Amino acid sequence: MEKKLPSRQENFSEWYNQLVLRAELADYAPVRGCMVVRPYGWALWENIQKALDERFKATGHVNAAFPMLIPQSFMTKEKEHVEGFSPELAVVTHGGGEQLEEPLVVRPTSETIIGTMYAKWIQSYRDLPVLINQWANVVRWEMRTKLFLRTLEFYWQEGHTAHAAEQEAVEETERMLQVYADFARTEAAVPVIPGRKSESEKFAGAVATYSIEAMMGDTKALQAGTSHFLGQNFARAFEIKFLDENNQLQHCWTTSWGLSTRFIGAIIMTHGDDQGLILPPRLAPIQAVIVPIYRSDAEKSAVMEAVQAVQTQLKDLRLKVDDREGLTPGFKFNDWELKGVPLRIEIGPKDVQNGTAALSRRDIPGRDGKSFAPMATLESSVPALLQTIQNNLLAKATAFRDSHIFEVSDYDSFKQVVSEQGWAYAWWSDDSDNEARIKEETKATLRVYASNPNPGEGVCFYSGRKTNKKAYFARSY
Amino acid sequence: MEKKLPSRQENFSEWYNQLVLRAELADYAPVRGCMVVRPYGWALWENIQKALDERFKATGHVNAAFPMLIPQSFMTKEKEHVEGFSPELAVVTHGGGEQLEEPLVVRPTSETIIGTMYAKWIQSYRDLPVLINQWANVVRWEMRTKLFLRTLEFYWQEGHTAHAAEQEAVEETERMLQVYADFARTEAAVPVIPGRKSESEKFAGAVATYSIEAMMGDTKALQAGTSHFLGQNFARAFEIKFLDENNQLQHCWTTSWGLSTRFIGAIIMTHGDDQGLILPPRLAPIQAVIVPIYRSDAEKSAVMEAVQAVQTQLKDLRLKVDDREGLTPGFKFNDWELKGVPLRIEIGPKDVQNGTAALSRRDIPGRDGKSFAPMATLESSVPALLQTIQNNLLAKATAFRDSHIFEVSDYDSFKQVVSEQGWAYAWWSDDSDNEARIKEETKATLRVYASNPNPGEGVCFYSGRKTNKKAYFARSY
Repeated sequence: MEKKLPSRQENFSEWYNQLVLRAELADYAPVRGCMVVRPYGWALWENIQKALDERFKATGHVNAAFPMLIPQSFMTKEKEHVEGFSPELAVVTHGGGEQLEEPLVVRPTSETIIGTMYAKWIQSYRDLPVLINQWANVVRWEMRTKLFLRTLEFYWQEGHTAHAAEQEAVEETERMLQVYADFARTEAAVPVIPGRKSESEKFAGAVATYSIEAMMGDTKALQAGTSHFLGQNFARAFEIKFLDENNQLQHCWTTSWGLSTRFIGAIIMTHGDDQGLILPPRLAPIQAVIVPIYRSDAEKSAVMEAVQAVQTQLKDLRLKVDDREGLTPGFKFNDWELKGVPLRIEIGPKDVQNGTAALSRRDIPGRDGKSFAPMATLESSVPALLQTIQNNLLAKATAFRDSHIFEVSDYDSFKQVVSEQGWAYAWWSDDSDNEARIKEETKATLRVYASNPNPGEGVCFYSGRKTNKKAYFARSY
Repeated sequence: MEKKLPSRQENFSEWYNQLVLRAELADYAPVRGCMVVRPYGWALWENIQKALDERFKATGHVNAAFPMLIPQSFMTKEKEHVEGFSPELAVVTHGGGEQLEEPLVVRPTSETIIGTMYAKWIQSYRDLPVLINQWANVVRWEMRTKLFLRTLEFYWQEGHTAHAAEQEAVEETERMLQVYADFARTEAAVPVIPGRKSESEKFAGAVATYSIEAMMGDTKALQAGTSHFLGQNFARAFEIKFLDENNQLQHCWTTSWGLSTRFIGAIIMTHGDDQGLILPPRLAPIQAVIVPIYRSDAEKSAVMEAVQAVQTQLKDLRLKVDDREGLTPGFKFNDWELKGVPLRIEIGPKDVQNGTAALSRRDIPGRDGKSFAPMATLESSVPALLQTIQNNLLAKATAFRDSHIFEVSDYDSFKQVVSEQGWAYAWWSDDSDNEARIKEETKATLRVYASNPNPGEGVCFYSGRKTNKKAYFARSY
């Protein structure tokens, strides 16, 4: 066994970096800031994709694929959009051995190219709404990168919708925010807080940006998915128009929303411990691993027979039998703990005799997480235990989050909270200059406004002004 | 209804172009040669992906994701590879507002970047075989493009495997060729001919290339998937080495294999007719469409009740109910015929009275393809009929193919066959110069060698030399 991971306490960032590499989730690519998503990491992403895609289809969306290469001039059509994304573009200047007349940018996001196509496809109110999603790779030239969290190329889905009425587009924006929140909680056991971002943190070109915010194990915040109400900004820039029922030409109302491989970082940093990853059963590529234990050939044959019977019982699970030769059970235990497999099933000669199997929960280390179950009923007890683990991960993460959010009413407590304790929750008078000053002084940013529609009225912790808004602040990834 | 498609007879190429647009499979993107795959086309591709991915996983492969951006210098490491791909590269020269020290190419294929990672990951024979696939977009700067068949950016899967022994890699190459052939026949009803390509047609850097060749409705050939035995060429260029069981350092043996959105073109041109697309039921995004027919509100309510009952019966199918208002049944029939839905189910007031539904097969136009079935048993009769349609499409395509392959023994008949009749099948003495001359004179290329391992001996139709090889020749896409 290689040496242990750094503990989360001593160096959370190094713990993360080493864990991603050693669990074989991802690796560094030859090009600075790019990553290779290895099979174990990609299997996790495929499970995320599946869970999201089902939700998108259930809410009426269809998938399509738009080109990766965008004429550079498209990026300049929406003023705020170009300001936001220009510094991050990768530019193709040569193709087929010749310099291009117009350079092409590799999409950093696809509002411009999709807007162009929508303008062509949409003629009448009968064509609306258009509800399209794509699973794609995008490139943003980031300076400081970290595997999954911020890479030059990353993988995501981006939904782009066009509507006849403003209210419909607003509802779509909110609906997809709730889809993300439900996905995060139900599938990933990540108890996110959904809400609206401040003006200074919104998407370049949006009227309003909403996000789901998750608390990582070091109490920093991570924006884990965003949903944007784009108003008519892109519809005007790209002339996405339709004839309404009265034969009047109108601009559409559009939205976009995305969730990326960054979410894998959220899972790692929400649930992981000093032994390694802890994956939520609903998304884990391997939900349970069977480790057969034997010393002699005779023991082996009895044990492997029992293992096969258990495999048959658990055929509906994502199951792995670790029958590697030449490795000790202890090595295997550590290996699967590092990789975050939610449940380990040990079967040895004694277990065969007793008709039991030893079940070790990844979410509860040591003896407390170990139990013995009759082998004959694993078909029902193992799925039930996986559900218990899933629930426990959500409960633990929620308790951790809630015990690290502190309501503050003055700037001194605010500073103490965001530098040492977690997130601050406070009355906030919604002033962009003050927000910038706080960021400058404390590195904390406004994550989202509290979504309670009637919070009452209070006094802003910073300006002392009366306000009817509350907000969450934190340092973030 | 818009005007009819051009007939396949009068202009096969225009028939294809218009069909792709009007069936809303794809559209032209703003950048020359790029395409937008629209939701209906992408749903077809997703079904293709699913059918292939299951086969890849069943043969032991896992998915991963490697970066799209490759340092330009990587491309030059394998001599033949760089010669083959250099003219087709898209090059990123600027990132984040600055000129890059080394330009990056957008992957045209991923042997070089994956080889680099394999060199890092593979140490010992215990790490082998490595069996990885990725679903990805790639860019090749093609001069003459056509939707799906040849586009600057396209979507595909590329499998890349590394093995300890030559024989294993050879077997992998052949296994994946057979996986493609089985997929094409079973899922797409495209009766491909698998076989080895000639030296002049092989992949840049391969020792041997195999392909599946399909005959289109105009009798041209289309290479619909390829599998390459790369020998140790890439392993030497990228130093993919392992310690064998005797602790000797050896180069790996590698393979790669790919199938792309081009296959959608193969489906269109294999099965389509003058009315439009005909999709094989196993891949069709919509397997059956229900068209309710009524004239009054009273009729409507009786009909829609029956439609709902049928929907419930057929819930396991990919089903669409065309309840659009203001369109005639005739318009809807044409629309779904254009889109190639395999089966149309018409339900009108008389059908409700009789307890029957009218079933119209897309593969047999007009009265011959129409039948009435008891509504109560559609749950079993419709899936059975879809299977019949699937079988019939394969039988029809096979008969068409077989009646357009002609064995020839002299160059005059060869020329007549490949210019007017279809594919030529002939004894061939395997001479690259002659092959080039034939291509120059007739535009026909050697598609694949016949795979019969013991064809006997015969006289080459071109050189008159004795040979033990036979081959297929055709004009191609």
